[in-house]
Amino acid sequence: MPVFKLTLEYDGSEFAGWAAQLGLRTVEGTLAGALEQVTGSAPALSVAGRTDAGVHAWGQVVSFSHGEGDAEGLGGSLNGVLPRDVAVVRAERAPEGFDARRDARSRTYCYRVLARTAPSPFERGRALWWPHALDRGALDECARLLAGTHDFTAFTPTRTDHVRFERDILRSEWRRTGDVLELWIEADAFMRHMVRILVGTMLEVSGGRRDLEQWGKLLEGGPRSDAGETVAAQGLYLAAVSYAN
Amino acid sequence: MPVFKLTLEYDGSEFAGWAAQLGLRTVEGTLAGALEQVTGSAPALSVAGRTDAGVHAWGQVVSFSHGEGDAEGLGGSLNGVLPRDVAVVRAERAPEGFDARRDARSRTYCYRVLARTAPSPFERGRALWWPHALDRGALDECARLLAGTHDFTAFTPTRTDHVRFERDILRSEWRRTGDVLELWIEADAFMRHMVRILVGTMLEVSGGRRDLEQWGKLLEGGPRSDAGETVAAQGLYLAAVSYAN
Repeated sequence: MPVFKLTLEYDGSEFAGWAAQLGLRTVEGTLAGALEQVTGSAPALSVAGRTDAGVHAWGQVVSFSHGEGDAEGLGGSLNGVLPRDVAVVRAERAPEGFDARRDARSRTYCYRVLARTAPSPFERGRALWWPHALDRGALDECARLLAGTHDFTAFTPTRTDHVRFERDILRSEWRRTGDVLELWIEADAFMRHMVRILVGTMLEVSGGRRDLEQWGKLLEGGPRSDAGETVAAQGLYLAAVSYAN
Repeated sequence: MPVFKLTLEYDGSEFAGWAAQLGLRTVEGTLAGALEQVTGSAPALSVAGRTDAGVHAWGQVVSFSHGEGDAEGLGGSLNGVLPRDVAVVRAERAPEGFDARRDARSRTYCYRVLARTAPSPFERGRALWWPHALDRGALDECARLLAGTHDFTAFTPTRTDHVRFERDILRSEWRRTGDVLELWIEADAFMRHMVRILVGTMLEVSGGRRDLEQWGKLLEGGPRSDAGETVAAQGLYLAAVSYAN
């Protein structure tokens, strides 16, 4: 059966995350409902990143088997019935056997921090407001040390969900656009809350509450309690997923 | 009495424009209420741009006379009581006699167009969604012809409000960031709906419904009915106001 691949954008503010849960409004549940409305069937969905409640996406990728129809037409029909906080930005046929979760080679997340004294009406629910002191040099050095393979045991609360705590960080850099500082981070895979705990800990280094030596040590492993706060979901975006072809 | 100058950012979606109107939620009314709450008095406000309902601001400027307090403290206190869709981004003392409206040398507006087939959850209420054909070359040529002094009679419905229909366009250019096309336009002053009718007419040229010759003629004057549609307020931002010092 032909496989379809959808790239989704969503504002996570009013979703209880990706994964369908009885009685909750989720992205998966919403997309499944739209697919059923448009195609008459509800295929099983494979997703590249199971985003948590409140987390946004610019480039979430979903795949499913579906017998008929052209991809572009399906994308347009879905946008016609989806609510305004989720949209299909690309719909295409994928090679037979394609699976959005299993075939993903890397995920890129972006964490946005509004770094100024005044709040911003336009960044409500879209960035973490951080009116505190920030040492950009320290943030850059944290990001530099983050690149490569590390043990991220200290950066996830879900010990039991994983058997291996090493991850390969392929890209890690802070960029500034106007008043917004963004951490761009790409890895083979992420664990639950990992980016949000990394950012929370980096902000503590940047504010002088921790030093770079402690940061370096945390990247070799340690209990969750040794790392910093989990920053708000509203600053986090699943930016892109890359595949071999 | 010392004069204070505030720079405001607001999301215009839930405001009936700047100007106070009985029974309506306006930016002026909201700011006046916050000032009264913080300072105990409600001074008369002078504003650089009287934005319409739904229009946003990144850099609106307001001035008022007020006897006491330091400007920075006042800005912080106002942000403590203002609703989340309006914020003071800068608060400062201005030279005696400063008036935000009278002393403004130019206003810069930005009109944002989401130019892609799919809608965007993040641009809801923040840009005009334009899934139609666009000729970037034609848009650029329209913007080029717009620079300089022209008669904008065709680009405002409010004939009776003005005695002079010439305006000096100091900057006029389209810029693209990702899927969003932005018109940046600076002038000594604007008339009601002027930017929105200019953009609506440019989009008609870009889509082939008008040609550049017609566009050029419209800039020499004409009835409102000769120009194009008034595009949605949600794409318009008062970006900045410039002063002599």
